[in-house]
Amino acid sequence: MTIMLKYPIARRRSTICSTIVRVLFFIIVFSSPLFAADADRDLLNRANAVFGPLPASMPSPDNPITPEKVKLGNMLFWEPRISSDGVVSCVKCHPLGLFAADGLKKALGNHCKENPRNSPTIFNAAAQISAHWIGNRASVEDQAKQALIGPPSFGMPTYESVEKVLKSIPGYVVLFKAAFPNDQDPVTVDNVARAIGAFERTLMTPSSFDAFVKGKASALNEQQKRGLRTFMDTGCTACHAGAYLGGQMYQKFGLIQPYWNLTKSQPVDEGRFAVTKNEADKYVFKVPILRNVAGTPPYFHDGSVDKLEDAVMIMAKLQLARDLTKEQTADIAAFLGSLTGTIPESALSVPLLPPAE
Amino acid sequence: MTIMLKYPIARRRSTICSTIVRVLFFIIVFSSPLFAADADRDLLNRANAVFGPLPASMPSPDNPITPEKVKLGNMLFWEPRISSDGVVSCVKCHPLGLFAADGLKKALGNHCKENPRNSPTIFNAAAQISAHWIGNRASVEDQAKQALIGPPSFGMPTYESVEKVLKSIPGYVVLFKAAFPNDQDPVTVDNVARAIGAFERTLMTPSSFDAFVKGKASALNEQQKRGLRTFMDTGCTACHAGAYLGGQMYQKFGLIQPYWNLTKSQPVDEGRFAVTKNEADKYVFKVPILRNVAGTPPYFHDGSVDKLEDAVMIMAKLQLARDLTKEQTADIAAFLGSLTGTIPESALSVPLLPPAE
Repeated sequence: MTIMLKYPIARRRSTICSTIVRVLFFIIVFSSPLFAADADRDLLNRANAVFGPLPASMPSPDNPITPEKVKLGNMLFWEPRISSDGVVSCVKCHPLGLFAADGLKKALGNHCKENPRNSPTIFNAAAQISAHWIGNRASVEDQAKQALIGPPSFGMPTYESVEKVLKSIPGYVVLFKAAFPNDQDPVTVDNVARAIGAFERTLMTPSSFDAFVKGKASALNEQQKRGLRTFMDTGCTACHAGAYLGGQMYQKFGLIQPYWNLTKSQPVDEGRFAVTKNEADKYVFKVPILRNVAGTPPYFHDGSVDKLEDAVMIMAKLQLARDLTKEQTADIAAFLGSLTGTIPESALSVPLLPPAE
Repeated sequence: MTIMLKYPIARRRSTICSTIVRVLFFIIVFSSPLFAADADRDLLNRANAVFGPLPASMPSPDNPITPEKVKLGNMLFWEPRISSDGVVSCVKCHPLGLFAADGLKKALGNHCKENPRNSPTIFNAAAQISAHWIGNRASVEDQAKQALIGPPSFGMPTYESVEKVLKSIPGYVVLFKAAFPNDQDPVTVDNVARAIGAFERTLMTPSSFDAFVKGKASALNEQQKRGLRTFMDTGCTACHAGAYLGGQMYQKFGLIQPYWNLTKSQPVDEGRFAVTKNEADKYVFKVPILRNVAGTPPYFHDGSVDKLEDAVMIMAKLQLARDLTKEQTADIAAFLGSLTGTIPESALSVPLLPPAE
């Protein structure tokens, strides 16, 4: 008995000891700065693979960026005289001091006409597959051009009427000539679009997230790192990947259940179906970029949700059937805050507009 | 006969000679640089006595200018979240790249409601006897405050509703505290008004005319000098005097004949009568300042006239019963062009607005 008893006790002791040793080992190893650094490195490597840092600009082979075009585009971005009520400029729906988004549910154009959808930021926006929510604008240039005669935006009667206004302002004639030196008749709406596009293609807002992705682990705080990990682990990166965290695909809003169940959207917007008339495109929208998302409420194509946390929670539920905890939601929101970037100087100076004659 | 004839001939010859000599003398003297300099000096002295150069700022004993107030005021000047449709900020009617005037006949406020009168520039504007065209705003501070609940401007329901919005934005709470350190509860509409007023009181636009008045004769070209002389000789300075060329008195618009005869104004605006109900104030308006006037069409309280030359011609006729020639009108317009000044850097940078929580 004694022997019988002794043996198991010794075995039990040895098992307990070894468990304690193991626990201690894990406590020591996993709480050490070395392990933290390893964890950071792992997160950093994953983030680098999934996102990568923001490039310096968003070039386009169709519209090379030149200083003359950017200068002119910057002025045209602020120009209200090419709108039907003399009040609408690009800045109206994209106020630069508010991260180039107007904070409204839906943008208000000429004569305060409501636009069909929420106006997205134009920062970091030119490298997306298309402009607008439903892919009915091929590029930022196309958007800038079509907006001029868009009934709820600038509302000018014709492209010619825009060109007529610009040609009547001698300062602009000189600036178009300088920006498009090879054109016989450079004051055209296509060149308006090219100039504004060139300006927009320079508007990058690098943030602490880019510093992190480039290797500076301390650029994100612990909550932001947790949020980033949760963001990736939850599957948000299925759509929100790349340096812009989105903008590269169309996706059905409400994969799991109708989006309006949670957003309380009124009326229901059929999304890209309006463009393609393809049943499969019902409720499909372009995946928006998430750069500066914390600074550009309200959220979604119709601005139906005011708070970032609510938008995060709704997205996880609608797209991934995931019920995030309050903590996870707050962590992801904190991570998204790290995408709030530095607005370039060039976007924060008001250009003097040439006077009418 | 011979003698009889000779004497008069000799006398005639001597008279002719002396006339030639006199003419030559005048030609030589008056065309000499010395005389030109004298003429310039005379014009310069007159201009200095009548106008004087622009001061460095427009201080008010009621609202001392401090850097903290100016910083906050600059931000509030761009803030649309304190308007009933989320679109109106001071900048809407005073776009800084267009000399802080919107170029419309009558300003468009919240929900595109038309304001009763043309929006004046806010550059160099704070030292006038009052704000607005009919003297229904005591100062720029009073204007900024009343605009917040003005039905056609910001259109907020109450002052409290403005304060509520600002208090909900943590960044503003900090900024108000810094700007009004002695206030227990600094986020008030009166402090909004003081901050915006302090910002506006710094917005001076010195121009080539100021260089001239300070003694640099070459700062105006010959046409501008002729225009300045004609401006003074015609009597325009009866009202448009001082460093701001106006803004110091009320005056009947149409002293000689009803203003709408020439401006074709529709409807007729009774001006200051609306404020005082005094018959003598019918068609009386504040004399506007003329700083940057060439850059701020259209003209008059209702923006009824598009061209500066037309406005000059109409004013001479309506107020002074003077029919200016085309040349005189062009000269005065050229002189008025010398009042187009340099917009201060501080007015041309877009402030980042604090995010909502």
